[in-house]
Amino acid sequence: MASKKPKLKIIPLGGLHEIGKNMTVIEYNQDIIIIDCGLAFPEDDMLGIDMVIPDTTYLQKNIDRIRGIVLTHGHEDHIGALPYVLKEINVPVFGTLLTIGLLDNKLKEHGMLDTTVRHVVVPGETIKLGQLKVEFIHTNHSIADAVALAITTPLGVLIHTGDFKIDYTPIGGEIADLQRFAQLGKEGVLLLMSDSTNASRKGYTMSEKSVGLVFDRIFEETPENRIMIATFSSNIHRIQQIVDSAVKFNRKVAIIGRSMLNAVKTSIELEYLDVPENTLIDISEIKNYTDRELAIITTGTQGEPMSALSRIASSEHKQVAVKPDDRIIISASSIPGNEKMISKVINELLKKGADVVYDGIADVHVSGHACQEELKLMLALTKPKYFMPVHGEFIHLSSHRELAISMGMAKENIFLMRIGDVLEISKNDAKVNGSVPSGQVLIDGLGVGDVGNIVLRDRRHLSEDGLMVVVVTMEKESGAILAGPDIISRGFVYVRESEDLMDGAKKAVEEALYNCEFKGYSGWSYIKNLIKDSLKDYVWQETKRSPMILPIIMEV
Amino acid sequence: MASKKPKLKIIPLGGLHEIGKNMTVIEYNQDIIIIDCGLAFPEDDMLGIDMVIPDTTYLQKNIDRIRGIVLTHGHEDHIGALPYVLKEINVPVFGTLLTIGLLDNKLKEHGMLDTTVRHVVVPGETIKLGQLKVEFIHTNHSIADAVALAITTPLGVLIHTGDFKIDYTPIGGEIADLQRFAQLGKEGVLLLMSDSTNASRKGYTMSEKSVGLVFDRIFEETPENRIMIATFSSNIHRIQQIVDSAVKFNRKVAIIGRSMLNAVKTSIELEYLDVPENTLIDISEIKNYTDRELAIITTGTQGEPMSALSRIASSEHKQVAVKPDDRIIISASSIPGNEKMISKVINELLKKGADVVYDGIADVHVSGHACQEELKLMLALTKPKYFMPVHGEFIHLSSHRELAISMGMAKENIFLMRIGDVLEISKNDAKVNGSVPSGQVLIDGLGVGDVGNIVLRDRRHLSEDGLMVVVVTMEKESGAILAGPDIISRGFVYVRESEDLMDGAKKAVEEALYNCEFKGYSGWSYIKNLIKDSLKDYVWQETKRSPMILPIIMEV
Repeated sequence: MASKKPKLKIIPLGGLHEIGKNMTVIEYNQDIIIIDCGLAFPEDDMLGIDMVIPDTTYLQKNIDRIRGIVLTHGHEDHIGALPYVLKEINVPVFGTLLTIGLLDNKLKEHGMLDTTVRHVVVPGETIKLGQLKVEFIHTNHSIADAVALAITTPLGVLIHTGDFKIDYTPIGGEIADLQRFAQLGKEGVLLLMSDSTNASRKGYTMSEKSVGLVFDRIFEETPENRIMIATFSSNIHRIQQIVDSAVKFNRKVAIIGRSMLNAVKTSIELEYLDVPENTLIDISEIKNYTDRELAIITTGTQGEPMSALSRIASSEHKQVAVKPDDRIIISASSIPGNEKMISKVINELLKKGADVVYDGIADVHVSGHACQEELKLMLALTKPKYFMPVHGEFIHLSSHRELAISMGMAKENIFLMRIGDVLEISKNDAKVNGSVPSGQVLIDGLGVGDVGNIVLRDRRHLSEDGLMVVVVTMEKESGAILAGPDIISRGFVYVRESEDLMDGAKKAVEEALYNCEFKGYSGWSYIKNLIKDSLKDYVWQETKRSPMILPIIMEV
Repeated sequence: MASKKPKLKIIPLGGLHEIGKNMTVIEYNQDIIIIDCGLAFPEDDMLGIDMVIPDTTYLQKNIDRIRGIVLTHGHEDHIGALPYVLKEINVPVFGTLLTIGLLDNKLKEHGMLDTTVRHVVVPGETIKLGQLKVEFIHTNHSIADAVALAITTPLGVLIHTGDFKIDYTPIGGEIADLQRFAQLGKEGVLLLMSDSTNASRKGYTMSEKSVGLVFDRIFEETPENRIMIATFSSNIHRIQQIVDSAVKFNRKVAIIGRSMLNAVKTSIELEYLDVPENTLIDISEIKNYTDRELAIITTGTQGEPMSALSRIASSEHKQVAVKPDDRIIISASSIPGNEKMISKVINELLKKGADVVYDGIADVHVSGHACQEELKLMLALTKPKYFMPVHGEFIHLSSHRELAISMGMAKENIFLMRIGDVLEISKNDAKVNGSVPSGQVLIDGLGVGDVGNIVLRDRRHLSEDGLMVVVVTMEKESGAILAGPDIISRGFVYVRESEDLMDGAKKAVEEALYNCEFKGYSGWSYIKNLIKDSLKDYVWQETKRSPMILPIIMEV
């Protein structure tokens, strides 16, 4: 029977209806491969959470069939969950040189270098994983060594673009391998999964080189003053262009920020960054040079409070103090949610007299993702039978769908999936058929998944109105009060200036306890609720606030 | 002696180096007047805070000299702190009809209508407050009835623009009274205080009328489907234009959202909003009309979780459910910090099939603040001797200063002040001379200023890692443990799935207590610290987290 034939399944476990934690499962018969394994940054209401990774329950249950994890590039939203996921699913990882280099830095921190099998591939190479073949195809992105994947299955070829743009004048590398995409398209592509991040943006994304031209202009216009440039540490091409401008205008380059130092070190070692001799100096040496001889590269484009740039702005950096007329370039755009932190840093720098240049007042940044015309090109080259927009919120996925429809693709051949949904492709058709467990696993310190909705609800409650702890020591048999009630509060009011309120609170509890004793009740949970309700009512009436109330009864 | 002559003092108490809580003190001899009295929205790290108002310590100390509060317009950042400040400083309030109307809604909520003296003024009118005369001058802004103030003092005329733009084709009113500004300028203006909100933006702010033309086009392009428009409830001119488009295209108008209902009611009563008979319907009546007969006006442009639009987006609104192909217009721009909430609402609406139009994809919003060319016009008309940019963060104030310098004004005649700074103007010169108390007073429920840095620090700590309470009952004399130690946690880990961790924590405390008893120590605070340190170390080692630890000893 036809239905017994092995089917091809595509299961996104992250990256759809969200930004980040990109992960896609490809499954054919006895073989599973995983594309990327990224983290997401916590939402505003995930208090205290460090990061979010995909739920991999499905993979843990099918661990015997997993042949490997293939990586498209080295950004956190594509490799950041690996140290956590590899602990559950220790399978070989495949990626290009820089991608594996950045992964190695992570694995080292987690003490997992010896236990993880990594394979370095080169763009153009094809590997075999069970019945599936994976070809790595060179693309352009805001990090070097990004690739798309062409996965040959018995039912046809799948293309996953990874994050990409098309840069006709890239820095330190080739144009995305458009010819290979065209060739695959000519031969027949079963399914295209393509990056939707910028699908709502018209036109083309500018070339990385355009930023270098602006850097040159700014360096030229700034002959006397010091220049400081903040960018993402993973944007090696951007860093290359800063170095190039500095060399051209006879400046030494100093690097600050831990992640920037790591990235530059790795990139020089792996020869992704070309820095002429006697260009780099240690930050401690800047005092030996005049302002016009210096360019400083730093992290902190998102206004992160602990970043080098934020500490410089708030005069807390040990080695760099802002001088009036320092020229400071923020070469990045703001990630949604960070706008206020960034503007705080800019205001602080301006107050100290610096001249701050940022995206919007000069073209000091370009995106790493394809805009509409590039996305259309990818669709035109690959001409897929089926299409699944990936990477983005609903608005991006649906814009991407509209693009494909505008090019003549039938709506029923486009799949707007949710994470966990299973796209099943057979010889004759493709359809969403069922789903597997999926979702968010929260990382807090060493804890993976031990903080869930109840803990987060409590943190939100505590963050809004603080708490009041009521402790009473009672005689086990008689219910006589031996000590207390004592009330301790935190995050509620400044107790020293609210003595009346705290006295009133104590009286409210005492009254409740007195009445309850009198009636001869003795169940602890009943008494706890009594304390809780009486205190809650009193506090709400006096303050219109609802702190968390924690009644504790010690029996002696 | 010349120095004994009474001096004119200008003291901003809010609105500089920040967005919101606008308030400026004008002082001459025995007379003080206050311009505006606004609130600010809490910063992200002010957990649980409802709003922020200016510190008015200086005014409370000089209450006998205060002649009144004059208001420029009815936005929250100009009148929102009045119910709190009037409780301390009960002085007469002066404003135009709509401004006082909106204030009255507030005073009613606080039960302060009977105890507050309000005077309605008309633009063009001049009132006398002690030795100071205040003239109200018509301007344009994103709320009706906005005015600038010309304050005549014995030393000269001060102009405070309030928030303004210059609209040559305003809705329901006149162009800002440019002729009066010119006349005052011709006669001589001592000091101009001018709105800097958009001072970093080039060109002109578009006319409010341009938005109406876009509404007409959208209504015309949408003959069959329901139209829903979200905007700020205070933007009466915007609401007027929605009503006008609805009437033109034969649609009934239904209003949702408490603040929108209040604003529309007040505006109709005071005749700021002109709604033809049989246009407004109650939201409960929408079921009697077809989609093409309906336009719904709602709040929620900032994605506020409790707003009507958010509840519609998440299918929690009782009376309105989104239908596929509803046309939803978000007629506002995002206030910094709200971007993620807004995009969440847009994504939800899109998922339900609605066609969402927002600022950026169509010109459905214009700012209420003057851009650079309008600001230059104000400077050119008034030609002030001294200039103080007001309303904005440092970046806006300094951009405004640059504009004035570019027009030939001397840098030393421009004052970039901080709140609390005292600008002292004498016959011969002006200089910043000392400062008065100023800052932020946090409102939380009924509490005004009872939440300060310590409480906020505790809330932040609790929000990050939760808390652990350790209770021990001890014999007062011997220090013998009668009950406990018991450990209760909230917001830390999900206890039911972390039994080992909690057992270990208890053991760590018991061990510390055992060792301490053995050594014969008995000071409670020593024991508390011992519990705290041992538990902290244990928890950090096991989880890399630092919950708040609250040791409580009950003595019997």
